[in-house]
Amino acid sequence: MNSVGIVMGSDSDFNVLEATIKILREFDVSFEVKVSSAHRTLERTLNWVRTFEEQEGKVIIAAAGMAAHLPGIVAAATTLPIIGVPIKSGALDGVDALYAIVQMPPGIPVATVGINAGKNAGLLAIQILAQTDTRLKEALKTYRQKMAAEIEAKDQAIQNKI
Amino acid sequence: MNSVGIVMGSDSDFNVLEATIKILREFDVSFEVKVSSAHRTLERTLNWVRTFEEQEGKVIIAAAGMAAHLPGIVAAATTLPIIGVPIKSGALDGVDALYAIVQMPPGIPVATVGINAGKNAGLLAIQILAQTDTRLKEALKTYRQKMAAEIEAKDQAIQNKI
Amino acid sequence: MNSVGIVMGSDSDFNVLEATIKILREFDVSFEVKVSSAHRTLERTLNWVRTFEEQEGKVIIAAAGMAAHLPGIVAAATTLPIIGVPIKSGALDGVDALYAIVQMPPGIPVATVGINAGKNAGLLAIQILAQTDTRLKEALKTYRQKMAAEIEAKDQAIQNKI
Amino acid sequence: MNSVGIVMGSDSDFNVLEATIKILREFDVSFEVKVSSAHRTLERTLNWVRTFEEQEGKVIIAAAGMAAHLPGIVAAATTLPIIGVPIKSGALDGVDALYAIVQMPPGIPVATVGINAGKNAGLLAIQILAQTDTRLKEALKTYRQKMAAEIEAKDQAIQNKI
Amino acid sequence: MNSVGIVMGSDSDFNVLEATIKILREFDVSFEVKVSSAHRTLERTLNWVRTFEEQEGKVIIAAAGMAAHLPGIVAAATTLPIIGVPIKSGALDGVDALYAIVQMPPGIPVATVGINAGKNAGLLAIQILAQTDTRLKEALKTYRQKMAAEIEAKDQAIQNKI
Amino acid sequence: MNSVGIVMGSDSDFNVLEATIKILREFDVSFEVKVSSAHRTLERTLNWVRTFEEQEGKVIIAAAGMAAHLPGIVAAATTLPIIGVPIKSGALDGVDALYAIVQMPPGIPVATVGINAGKNAGLLAIQILAQTDTRLKEALKTYRQKMAAEIEAKDQAIQNKI
Amino acid sequence: MNSVGIVMGSDSDFNVLEATIKILREFDVSFEVKVSSAHRTLERTLNWVRTFEEQEGKVIIAAAGMAAHLPGIVAAATTLPIIGVPIKSGALDGVDALYAIVQMPPGIPVATVGINAGKNAGLLAIQILAQTDTRLKEALKTYRQKMAAEIEAKDQAIQNKI
Amino acid sequence: MNSVGIVMGSDSDFNVLEATIKILREFDVSFEVKVSSAHRTLERTLNWVRTFEEQEGKVIIAAAGMAAHLPGIVAAATTLPIIGVPIKSGALDGVDALYAIVQMPPGIPVATVGINAGKNAGLLAIQILAQTDTRLKEALKTYRQKMAAEIEAKDQAIQNKI
Repeated sequence: MNSVGIVMGSDSDFNVLEATIKILREFDVSFEVKVSSAHRTLERTLNWVRTFEEQEGKVIIAAAGMAAHLPGIVAAATTLPIIGVPIKSGALDGVDALYAIVQMPPGIPVATVGINAGKNAGLLAIQILAQTDTRLKEALKTYRQKMAAEIEAKDQAIQNKI
Repeated sequence: MNSVGIVMGSDSDFNVLEATIKILREFDVSFEVKVSSAHRTLERTLNWVRTFEEQEGKVIIAAAGMAAHLPGIVAAATTLPIIGVPIKSGALDGVDALYAIVQMPPGIPVATVGINAGKNAGLLAIQILAQTDTRLKEALKTYRQKMAAEIEAKDQAIQNKI
Repeated sequence: MNSVGIVMGSDSDFNVLEATIKILREFDVSFEVKVSSAHRTLERTLNWVRTFEEQEGKVIIAAAGMAAHLPGIVAAATTLPIIGVPIKSGALDGVDALYAIVQMPPGIPVATVGINAGKNAGLLAIQILAQTDTRLKEALKTYRQKMAAEIEAKDQAIQNKI
Repeated sequence: MNSVGIVMGSDSDFNVLEATIKILREFDVSFEVKVSSAHRTLERTLNWVRTFEEQEGKVIIAAAGMAAHLPGIVAAATTLPIIGVPIKSGALDGVDALYAIVQMPPGIPVATVGINAGKNAGLLAIQILAQTDTRLKEALKTYRQKMAAEIEAKDQAIQNKI
Repeated sequence: MNSVGIVMGSDSDFNVLEATIKILREFDVSFEVKVSSAHRTLERTLNWVRTFEEQEGKVIIAAAGMAAHLPGIVAAATTLPIIGVPIKSGALDGVDALYAIVQMPPGIPVATVGINAGKNAGLLAIQILAQTDTRLKEALKTYRQKMAAEIEAKDQAIQNKI
Repeated sequence: MNSVGIVMGSDSDFNVLEATIKILREFDVSFEVKVSSAHRTLERTLNWVRTFEEQEGKVIIAAAGMAAHLPGIVAAATTLPIIGVPIKSGALDGVDALYAIVQMPPGIPVATVGINAGKNAGLLAIQILAQTDTRLKEALKTYRQKMAAEIEAKDQAIQNKI
Repeated sequence: MNSVGIVMGSDSDFNVLEATIKILREFDVSFEVKVSSAHRTLERTLNWVRTFEEQEGKVIIAAAGMAAHLPGIVAAATTLPIIGVPIKSGALDGVDALYAIVQMPPGIPVATVGINAGKNAGLLAIQILAQTDTRLKEALKTYRQKMAAEIEAKDQAIQNKI
Repeated sequence: MNSVGIVMGSDSDFNVLEATIKILREFDVSFEVKVSSAHRTLERTLNWVRTFEEQEGKVIIAAAGMAAHLPGIVAAATTLPIIGVPIKSGALDGVDALYAIVQMPPGIPVATVGINAGKNAGLLAIQILAQTDTRLKEALKTYRQKMAAEIEAKDQAIQNKI
């Protein structure tokens, strides 16, 4: 049983989702990854979603570019929270994907993060899981402190540079 | 058995599709209309598409607004030609719907017409059906002549006005 | 103790959030509402967020228009999941608010819903809470069935109309 | 006699249309290619369209970039279905071409595919031709299965990678 | 013989061109008006352009909305200077028309004015005609002085108001 | 005395205007080139425009990028026809320059060509000059024939390639 | 002698600048208002700017719509800080004005506020003047407190309403 | 005590701000630089702003990319004039940052310069400081003359080139 399911419509989206995987591993959150398309393998996608939910999965991260239907279709097949990641690709640089993911009709929301924001998708999943997991809640606070410390270090580096 | 299937994700799209129905009736083309959502009634939508194809339907017109997934999902469920109609609605005035319909990934095309272009969707369906229907081919030529005559009449009206 | 905190930067955003309140009430989810600005009452906003988290609040919905900083600033002050609602207002019709909410830098995600999507913000909060609440999980499934039934009824109405 | 006519306004569009040619060859569909401009060789373009229609051509694919008038002008000269391919070029990256092709006035539709979507233009032509060609209908179904199998293979490759 | 030819694709564009007609009349410049479409009456449009040029017409003003091909097609049929007026209409408010008129390929320019800028189209035509017409050159200078005086009067009105 | 004045706000615009110079030389049209800014050397720019007009110059081509005020300011200082060339530069790729040039207020038009369309700016100037110059009128017709012949040659090259 | 100069290109911009005047009066800051165009009365505009600077004016607020050149031209004529206000008008709703004001070339900055943000233009001028005026500095702090109190009052009103 | 405070949300913004530092040094204006985030180190950012104001700092330049909240948050914490610099980064090339900085709600203005306009941010700060500093006022006039001379030199270089 994995907590987070990651699904992408094409393996070309994988380089964005590597940041998702990295942050989930850093927080020691179990996950599974699936390549499955909303258009080319629709039934297989729907089956995977249903199985993931039956096996007590908690959150799904779905990434897609261009006319990005995958997050919305996954959201239609379950009541688990779905995090959508618009991928920058094609002539419109991901604006098409952003609109196709965030502008869902009333009734079926998708929790959208920024274009190519693989890391934030992972962190949002962790924040949702932390609701019932004090280990994760603590880890998130530590992570915030680490980010703050990094900025202070970068500030120091700039002071030395100018 | 109907030649054209018209499917919309919400009955609020009907006012745009009335122009589609009107032009199909004008050309005496049989059609059926379905309200079914890509998200709220996904299985029902897929079933309708498959039944339509089995019953020798020829072309499907799918209309949707905002994150407009319906045309793409219908296209994924059949190899019939799908005509997508982006609906103007919401804060983005249909640009979201246009991008979500036209920017389909390689392998599953949708024949996209302009935003709210219900009449052109009907005419495109007729042009596709005319491939094997000389009556329609003739009717299209007559229709073009009628449009030309209307412009000439409008030109005359402007001459009288200035 | 309330499960959902709703915060808006201006009381002019309230008409969008009424849909949020309505859906939370329909699911019998406790909530509180706060008018507090990221700019005009920054400290007060941060204090409210911290108090909400200490009192075991679970999810925050933050709405703002134009240069919409409120959701991001709230996200910076807590590790609870934050749902951002871009409000349509001003000359750019909410595109500015959408970009200002969804394009968060790495480390601090905001779960963004569509422009003016107050209802979907509420449903997303409920889906997150349902993770540990079987009553809500069941209620969501019933809600989905109700939405499907409504579409079938609308389909019937259209059949009678054409 | 060829089933599909491919016309481009400039030979610089050829690299996008190579994907069209490749897919038509894969499905063993006869085609012809024409370089002819809507502006620089308007009469020649119109003559080619009329000849193509007289010689029982079935579908025309027209590609153009920037102020992309070619698909619309071709559509004005025939009642055959016209598939428009917006080309990414110039400072606006193809958004200008997309709008100039898809936003046709009532009466003369163009079946628009995505920016640089040469492959989908070919597949849409094949789907239109398949209406009266059971060989193509079967080939399309096989092609869909092949695409699905490719995704499953890519999924397997990702499983091995993570 | 008229100096300026005004052509519009639809009589719905007339309200914008009334400002063009008004300014041409104010400068006592002869003109003719034609309603003729780039798509619905292409040959008729081309014939009108050629006749206008043969009859020593000097400048053509072409207005169109949405996928606005008329100015470019008129430009393709003559070497007279063509002034293009994008019309605000449809879901994209004239941005589509602006791009479809201004982004002409190398070789066939269109002198584009602002969206709905009927008056400026007329003034630009007059400025082109003034090259060989000292009466017009003087009239333009007088017009500029009149505009300046109007601003000074408005300035005075504001001083009285505040 | 030169017929065409070419002015640019920055010498970085020169690479676009080289195409303008090349086409003017091809048509044997006299011209002069000026680097002068609307902001950094406003008076000098205005003086150059006035001198150019006094010396019987006929048409001015003004190029600028970003907040491109140069064409409009030049247009304010003379009643000669002004051709504006938006330059692609900066983060917005020339959309800012296009809007800043084409959307002039009523009273002071700028004849705008496409982004980076240096060649078309030159051709438009030649078309304006041809009004009173039969040599240029003939040369334009020859140029059109040469363009058509080039397309036919490219068509032949593609036929050999496929 | 007035501290703030307010200049607009057209008296139709006055309704936005009324908010500027109101806030300046509220802070008891002296100002003058000028209607003068960058295009129609360029010299008069430049003369006003120079006189304002000679008379020890401190800050200029310049408002304009569409191809909004006024703020940039004013900035070119003085080294006083210039605040630019893009006005919502025409088909592009002020995006053209925003780009034409904010995207100034290196060397001549304009301090741009939001579209139609007349009040913020006034407040920014006051913040600049407060640098050397302790009365204004105190008044700004009081104003911030008043804004905070207003939000708290609105919060209370919402609490009573839900 | 430094006159100008420069704050950036990430050290990746430093390359844009080097132009700011260079121009401040050229005018011999004292400054300090801080790397501090609106989200990751919010309290630290607010503390730095308050300290800067207490130590008689005069102007703050704040740079940020994507959902650029830093300038607005800094503006909320002080009544000093804040200059916002949108950074080009991510899939939207800085349009998101521009909107997130310039579209501030009424009450808290940010003086926005162009995308990546580090030099203009510095010059605007100097123009604000020059209000009470005749040395800077003179230096700005000299700088304008130097810019004009550079353009004249570039003009000469072009004359030699063509």
